[in-house]
Amino acid sequence: MWTFDAFPSAKVAASYGFSPSKAWLDHLRESTLRIAGGCSASFVSPHGLVMTDHHCAVNCVDQLSTQQTNYVESSFYAKTDADEVACPNFELDRLDAIDDETAAITDATKGKSGRSLIDAYNAKSAELSASCGKSESIRCDVVPLYHGGVYKLYHYKRYTDVRLVFAPEYAVAQFGGDPDNFNYPRYDFDVTFLRAYDAGKPADTPDYLRWSAAGSSAGDLAFVSGNPGSTDREFTISQLEYMRDYFYPQQLTQASELRGLLEQYQTEGPEQLRDTKQNLFFLENRYKGNYGRNAMVLGPAFMASKVAAERALRVQVAKRPDLAAAAGDWDKLAAVEQRKAQLANRDSYIADGPTSQLFAWARQLVRYPVEKAKPDAERLPAYSEAQLVTLPRRLFAAIPIYPGPQELMFNFWAKKMREDLGTDDPFVHQVLGSKTPAQWAHDLVAGTHVGDVATRKALFAGGLPAIDASQDTMIRFVASIDAQSRAMQKQYEDEVTAPEHALSESIARARFAVLGTSVYPDATFTQRLSYGTVKGFIDQNGKSVEPYTTIGGLFARATGAEPYALPQTWLDAQSALDPNTPMNFVTTNDVVGGNSGSPVVDKDGNVIGLVFDGNIFSLGGTFGYQPDVNRTVAVYSRALLAGLHTVYHADRIVEEISP
Amino acid sequence: MWTFDAFPSAKVAASYGFSPSKAWLDHLRESTLRIAGGCSASFVSPHGLVMTDHHCAVNCVDQLSTQQTNYVESSFYAKTDADEVACPNFELDRLDAIDDETAAITDATKGKSGRSLIDAYNAKSAELSASCGKSESIRCDVVPLYHGGVYKLYHYKRYTDVRLVFAPEYAVAQFGGDPDNFNYPRYDFDVTFLRAYDAGKPADTPDYLRWSAAGSSAGDLAFVSGNPGSTDREFTISQLEYMRDYFYPQQLTQASELRGLLEQYQTEGPEQLRDTKQNLFFLENRYKGNYGRNAMVLGPAFMASKVAAERALRVQVAKRPDLAAAAGDWDKLAAVEQRKAQLANRDSYIADGPTSQLFAWARQLVRYPVEKAKPDAERLPAYSEAQLVTLPRRLFAAIPIYPGPQELMFNFWAKKMREDLGTDDPFVHQVLGSKTPAQWAHDLVAGTHVGDVATRKALFAGGLPAIDASQDTMIRFVASIDAQSRAMQKQYEDEVTAPEHALSESIARARFAVLGTSVYPDATFTQRLSYGTVKGFIDQNGKSVEPYTTIGGLFARATGAEPYALPQTWLDAQSALDPNTPMNFVTTNDVVGGNSGSPVVDKDGNVIGLVFDGNIFSLGGTFGYQPDVNRTVAVYSRALLAGLHTVYHADRIVEEISP
Repeated sequence: MWTFDAFPSAKVAASYGFSPSKAWLDHLRESTLRIAGGCSASFVSPHGLVMTDHHCAVNCVDQLSTQQTNYVESSFYAKTDADEVACPNFELDRLDAIDDETAAITDATKGKSGRSLIDAYNAKSAELSASCGKSESIRCDVVPLYHGGVYKLYHYKRYTDVRLVFAPEYAVAQFGGDPDNFNYPRYDFDVTFLRAYDAGKPADTPDYLRWSAAGSSAGDLAFVSGNPGSTDREFTISQLEYMRDYFYPQQLTQASELRGLLEQYQTEGPEQLRDTKQNLFFLENRYKGNYGRNAMVLGPAFMASKVAAERALRVQVAKRPDLAAAAGDWDKLAAVEQRKAQLANRDSYIADGPTSQLFAWARQLVRYPVEKAKPDAERLPAYSEAQLVTLPRRLFAAIPIYPGPQELMFNFWAKKMREDLGTDDPFVHQVLGSKTPAQWAHDLVAGTHVGDVATRKALFAGGLPAIDASQDTMIRFVASIDAQSRAMQKQYEDEVTAPEHALSESIARARFAVLGTSVYPDATFTQRLSYGTVKGFIDQNGKSVEPYTTIGGLFARATGAEPYALPQTWLDAQSALDPNTPMNFVTTNDVVGGNSGSPVVDKDGNVIGLVFDGNIFSLGGTFGYQPDVNRTVAVYSRALLAGLHTVYHADRIVEEISP
Repeated sequence: MWTFDAFPSAKVAASYGFSPSKAWLDHLRESTLRIAGGCSASFVSPHGLVMTDHHCAVNCVDQLSTQQTNYVESSFYAKTDADEVACPNFELDRLDAIDDETAAITDATKGKSGRSLIDAYNAKSAELSASCGKSESIRCDVVPLYHGGVYKLYHYKRYTDVRLVFAPEYAVAQFGGDPDNFNYPRYDFDVTFLRAYDAGKPADTPDYLRWSAAGSSAGDLAFVSGNPGSTDREFTISQLEYMRDYFYPQQLTQASELRGLLEQYQTEGPEQLRDTKQNLFFLENRYKGNYGRNAMVLGPAFMASKVAAERALRVQVAKRPDLAAAAGDWDKLAAVEQRKAQLANRDSYIADGPTSQLFAWARQLVRYPVEKAKPDAERLPAYSEAQLVTLPRRLFAAIPIYPGPQELMFNFWAKKMREDLGTDDPFVHQVLGSKTPAQWAHDLVAGTHVGDVATRKALFAGGLPAIDASQDTMIRFVASIDAQSRAMQKQYEDEVTAPEHALSESIARARFAVLGTSVYPDATFTQRLSYGTVKGFIDQNGKSVEPYTTIGGLFARATGAEPYALPQTWLDAQSALDPNTPMNFVTTNDVVGGNSGSPVVDKDGNVIGLVFDGNIFSLGGTFGYQPDVNRTVAVYSRALLAGLHTVYHADRIVEEISP
């Protein structure tokens, strides 16, 4: 995950005999895109044609669907330029330049601490961003790297007129569903083509990636260019132990129980299935992510290597008089993590409250008039003047609410709260009174009208008097716990969040002072370049997994039953497809979430694949990279061509991208 | 958990100024009982009156209930001797003598290994047990301690005529249900009185525990006499890491998901609730047990102390030429644990199969004729001639089978198997074919008649030809996977179970050679004595918990909603009860499951309480004792008297036990 301005070409040359030149790097950088919202993409023609994953553009495909045609289920193909349809809300950013602003930022913040430090940083950061100019097509962000060891100013060209060109059926894009997610072997056609427009015309994009005619073979060098979301590789041992000993056990068991509740709920009828389908999808995805990350911190070898690295770093820090102030920070942070373990559950239940749209709306309605009356600087951050600009849109969104799942969620929340905080906790007492969690959840959902837009508008317009007079159960519930919630939030910030942040930054600066840029910085959803090779691995059951799957394997795996049911287009095309063409493949590149949609390119900078996932060990990449097992999962370039040509007859695209 | 013949009286005297004499110890041992099946108890009158927990005798209470009267819900009290009713199946054992047979056993097994070692041990063990004489009222067991460092012969007096005297309502015995289970503060009246009979008359029991008039106070010395079930305190680091890194994450997430499925299933109707109530109860109990044990091995301080102890022991072992053979066993065992991590899931799914009574019966029917045809020594252990004696009773038991929960369990099993072994696993392919887990489970349960006793009898009687000809879906499923199941079981035994057992024993012998009896042996559900004091603790949220609760607290906690709904008897008696009388209390005694029903006695050997639970940290007692947080939870002696007298007017018992 190297930044483009500090790529170790010499190191690559030493290992692989190929040294990426500045021109090579610039071309790749200019061809790579970031999708605001959390994905990557690339230009694959001089006319603004963009390749990314289906799951990175599925919101657009969904939004363009109509009562008559669900393009998510049925696929989409614009036969001509004129058929390309604009995505309602889509932003692509291309990184054009990187300036070092470390000196400017450190000068502006020198000698400051606490609130005045944050104010000075924010002011300098806003000044630097604004220096690039104000236009829809310009974006400039200050990017802290190494947790404040280095500050850069990233200049982007921004595209907001983005149109849908091609999307396959969800069933083949996400073939294998949850059981195959974060696993390998895979057989997915997880691709979508978009086009960036400039002034109403296809964008002129002289830097774009050409298609590799040959594809790749096992052992080949492979580069992934994209925007890895976030990593926590600088976590200290005490932070990792908090994750392993408290956070994951809690998250994984709660998610599992909720998963069971929703799975059974979905069997009760088609409505129940429809109303909770998205909830379960996101829950399972989050579960598996946490499962993989937990497996990493549970690995004794990984933890032993982190312990050794931390010990070595602390020895270095102790030796340097200029870093004396940081020497005790590891122990101080460990004490904060102990306190976090004691308070995290309470903070989650008491300050955050239930995960429910109804609850979120009710809280906004209750807090808005109270916060609005305060000076901006004294408000809760979510009610600052800047945030209030979008509050009405969020609060009055016509999101449908289903009472059944709401009741299930509130019941589950109350039950787990009683289990985790204990029956004797005063907050538990206050919430439940003499009711069971099920009774309480039923009464709460049955007695609220916060799900109606009209009710929310009236309560919003009525201000504090309307809130105080309301007999709505959800409003009364939120109001009844508001004092405790605010007090808990403050306690948690004072005792955990604030000291953890300050100590982490101090340790990060000491680490950077010792190690400099010899390791790459934690991912921050900014553009990075990774190198690796095409290579299989040994899975968790000790089985050797080959790097390539084939189109024949896709058909062999298709049982006709969800999630292994292929769409008719593929079944019809089977005889015309070469079963030996590789379908998906794995590489050793170090990627994490945010890299979805990244191109995989060879030494010539040509496309050999499209990243759409990682294996289960890639999830541990949050904390560290394990070269023996961490794998990037990609669609093979020739499978992309074969699908476009033979299955979808999307010849206009094939011609545009063909080598 | 000291054995009575090696109790460290001098150590107790040094810390507490009280040295238990041999007479004191003998009296307590003779007053203490073991309940076959997993609990402890004590004589509390010279006429065989026995005190234990309600949950230790609930099976008897249930079996004595009739269509008209459910004594579990309504309570039971025998107003006269004549009203005491015999439990259908109950055994109490009193430990009368302990002989050391280490020399006899080691002589008999000297120089032997493998099968011939096991045969020699079994033969000597049977000979020693038989030497006590053959009678219903005599029981002798060879008890290996320190994993074979020492062998003892335990002589028991056995009581099989045991009658029910008094049992309170389940609602107050298990007040707080699952949320309070393994937690503290508690407010339970978890007691039952039984009576041991000899030749049709109340047994003559001159050794019995008298009631303490004063009760106890914080800081008082307390002894617990009973039968702790099992501990794994001799686990090596690699075994503990296996538990932490593989076993518990797997168990806890699976149990949580199944819990969610069952919880939601129970909301679908009264039948669904009734059919799965026991399943969910046992699941939640098992879940919490594993949760607590996992918390222990997740504790960095605990693991650090185990690492240090193991390192110290290995240094000692390495120094002694007589122990040279064991020096490398820790590393060998670590390699076996790695293999276990790879194979355990496969063994569970492929060798064990789904957890279902239908599956178990079908497997017995399929395997019986095959195994029966082999010589005894070559059979699977479950089909040895000794085991076959009870097979018809188990196979033809009229246990009701509910298709809904069965389908749920099979669906869950198949879904998790696909998730854990992967869609590409040949076994997964073979089981599911082209069906979804839900379709497969539905077809499997819909097409079987193995739930009918008549069908099972016919298939049993018909032997191999009947099995081969059967079109029953469950029989065909079991038969179709039998070869793979047997092969998997053999592989797991060869690569995991057998080497793990041999290496553990070797390490245990080396440890005993170094440490001797300076630590007490792992619990083996045999009689032990523990000392400690009445003392509160700091809970997982950092809150200080007082050692005593009160009867007033019980009423304050009673909301009227399950599981905090008190029976009418207690509500009626509230005004007559002193709210300041202690209800439950905690001590620092080291106990584990099996100690339920143990008496807590003071320096005079008088009853000050009745053990019925441990706090959440006591569950970690499986792996080690943490004096700062591990607590035994007991009913206070005066609360027992107050309940019997004021709530139940059970004056006959009060008079019999009163001080």
